[in-house]
Amino acid sequence: MKRSTKEEKLQRIIQSEKFLNQIQDLDVLLETLLTEARTIVNADAGSIYVVEEDRLRIKYAQNNTQLKKLSAGEKLPFVSFSFPMNEYSIAGYVASKKETLNIADVYNIPADSTFKFNKQPDKDTGYRTKSMLTIPLISASNKILGVLQIINAQDQNANTIAFDENAELYLNHFAANATIALERASLTRAMILRTIKMAEFRDPKETGAHVNRVASFAVELYDRWAFEKKVPFETQHKYRDTLRIAAMLHDVGKVGISDSILKKPARFTPEEHDIIKGHAVIGAALFNDIDTDIENMARDVALRHHERWDGTGYPGKIPPEVLENPFTPYQIRQGLSGEEIPLSARIVALADVFDALSSKRVYKDSWKEEDVYEEIRKSSGTHFDPDLVTMFFAILPRIKEIQAMWPD
Amino acid sequence: MKRSTKEEKLQRIIQSEKFLNQIQDLDVLLETLLTEARTIVNADAGSIYVVEEDRLRIKYAQNNTQLKKLSAGEKLPFVSFSFPMNEYSIAGYVASKKETLNIADVYNIPADSTFKFNKQPDKDTGYRTKSMLTIPLISASNKILGVLQIINAQDQNANTIAFDENAELYLNHFAANATIALERASLTRAMILRTIKMAEFRDPKETGAHVNRVASFAVELYDRWAFEKKVPFETQHKYRDTLRIAAMLHDVGKVGISDSILKKPARFTPEEHDIIKGHAVIGAALFNDIDTDIENMARDVALRHHERWDGTGYPGKIPPEVLENPFTPYQIRQGLSGEEIPLSARIVALADVFDALSSKRVYKDSWKEEDVYEEIRKSSGTHFDPDLVTMFFAILPRIKEIQAMWPD
Repeated sequence: MKRSTKEEKLQRIIQSEKFLNQIQDLDVLLETLLTEARTIVNADAGSIYVVEEDRLRIKYAQNNTQLKKLSAGEKLPFVSFSFPMNEYSIAGYVASKKETLNIADVYNIPADSTFKFNKQPDKDTGYRTKSMLTIPLISASNKILGVLQIINAQDQNANTIAFDENAELYLNHFAANATIALERASLTRAMILRTIKMAEFRDPKETGAHVNRVASFAVELYDRWAFEKKVPFETQHKYRDTLRIAAMLHDVGKVGISDSILKKPARFTPEEHDIIKGHAVIGAALFNDIDTDIENMARDVALRHHERWDGTGYPGKIPPEVLENPFTPYQIRQGLSGEEIPLSARIVALADVFDALSSKRVYKDSWKEEDVYEEIRKSSGTHFDPDLVTMFFAILPRIKEIQAMWPD
Repeated sequence: MKRSTKEEKLQRIIQSEKFLNQIQDLDVLLETLLTEARTIVNADAGSIYVVEEDRLRIKYAQNNTQLKKLSAGEKLPFVSFSFPMNEYSIAGYVASKKETLNIADVYNIPADSTFKFNKQPDKDTGYRTKSMLTIPLISASNKILGVLQIINAQDQNANTIAFDENAELYLNHFAANATIALERASLTRAMILRTIKMAEFRDPKETGAHVNRVASFAVELYDRWAFEKKVPFETQHKYRDTLRIAAMLHDVGKVGISDSILKKPARFTPEEHDIIKGHAVIGAALFNDIDTDIENMARDVALRHHERWDGTGYPGKIPPEVLENPFTPYQIRQGLSGEEIPLSARIVALADVFDALSSKRVYKDSWKEEDVYEEIRKSSGTHFDPDLVTMFFAILPRIKEIQAMWPD
């Protein structure tokens, strides 16, 4: 490798590390970490795993060859499985020994190795997995956080080659720094989940599964939006990172609502419903004091996720003193409408209602699939942004995958 | 400066930056940032200011010469004041222009400067402020976060000299990296304050002032403990950083208690009091899923801050299923006693009760100062760890300073 290329590579690694450090959401970080690692060593595919107690769970799998077979804007299906963290699988070996494995051809693993390569996925998809570089993600305190697995290094003519010493060196250096971003994002996620748990003490509907589905639906809707509206990469990346967190927090304002109302196992009276409407303003007030991207979007989403496209939602235009003290009584005035409602809130409105209809609640069964779709279709232009409804149906297979990943 | 010294300096700066990155609490970070900056350029004194809207507030002031006049374990008094962020003060100039100022003698500032040096504090203390290096703390997005002011550079014979070009270079480099730690700690603080705000929606006693006083009392008590028990510096530093956050969160479990009880403007019935006792277990459950220093100490403090030294407190020994689901009914059994209660919880117990007695509540006036001290003294060995009670009275002036800084 020539000196200039080497320096370009190092420059690229430093830039990747800076980029990772700006990401707030754990899921967005894992996906980006995998993409950046693949780019650094020019690999066709890869996966990233995280440690869950004594198991490894796959979080993202990427495959350029497979991706090219899809139409533009489409995504590879989600994968989700976990396996024991022991020496009988490649990733398990790397995690349990905290050792890097660089294998030139996974179809030619020496017979005396404890681990084997499972050819079944290749048989199912017609892909040929060959070279594989698997690296442990280890924290500053020497704890194993996950495993980064990069597959099929490509030469300049797109032939699969083995990962050389340089690739190993680069990725090990990259991984060492990426774990700092990983630990930071894990802490942020933990703090957000704690916030949600506090709201869940008041409203048992706010489960982890509901919150994760709404956040995942929201990001998928936005990704489609960004694809169709040709949003530049940087903007899209930043927005989806922030949106994931803001969407998770959409209902935390329920912490301020009396539990005698929230926990009532029946439909609410009109008076009770008026009190419940206050959760939008209370939620927004929780994000008032800080002026960062996350706080700003979280405020938009908390405050506006019950506005409707036709202007019949709430809380509408509110006096500033109400935002300062969300318990100030005030008259609900005209709702915001159309593009007055922030995009983030329009997205979460659709994601939240869709999930509520599809789920069982104490006072109702889950609706039939077709009835839910009919309701969403009917609400286009009244409750929901019609563009978003069209996009929702364009990504329906993806939406169903998310439902399967996060059952109640 | 010789090459080797230069390299040693750079090494020292890199180490300082690593050290700062491990700090979680904003206040601990600001204090440490100032200490490290002074060490790097061998300065006798310094101050650190943060931006509050359009004003600068001093957070910490350090002065080695003054410190030496105190007895061991004693601290310089807290300072707290703020002033407009404009060009009429040195720190204001640096903040508003985002420019470093390196002044050889502040008693000789050119007459055409917009800013002047205020000699009054020197007159009051007998200190001679001379050389002063003032540096803006600027975020990655070019926002002014605060100002670092380093005073009286010392040569090897402890004579005051001017700050040279190298000192300026080092501190600017250090400050650029320190702002990353500063932004991170600010976000952590914001998330914690949001958590507390959520609990405050349920229990109006949990105000920002109460929480800040309890956290500051706790750190002062621990610092005295660490001094008397000769705790090594590293351990002390880590523990006080974690304790500050854990102490702030001691009562967040109140989020799970019905508001009809919490908001009652009268003393509780025995039945209501039993329900309220549940807040210790609910609070601990919020920190169950994560295994970091902060979560572990926050769990200890939330769960055990109502245990009493003589074993008559709550919740005592609890079945594991109660920690998993804090709403599981169970019989309160024997409380923990003596050193079975974690040190962090023993410290917060004293800090919390002291603050409750000294403060006005809806159902009671604040107690008279002497009555509060009498009650604390009387509770030594029954409610409180006797060592901690002794230390409390040893640092009483400091405790009073904190009360003055955070009035209700």
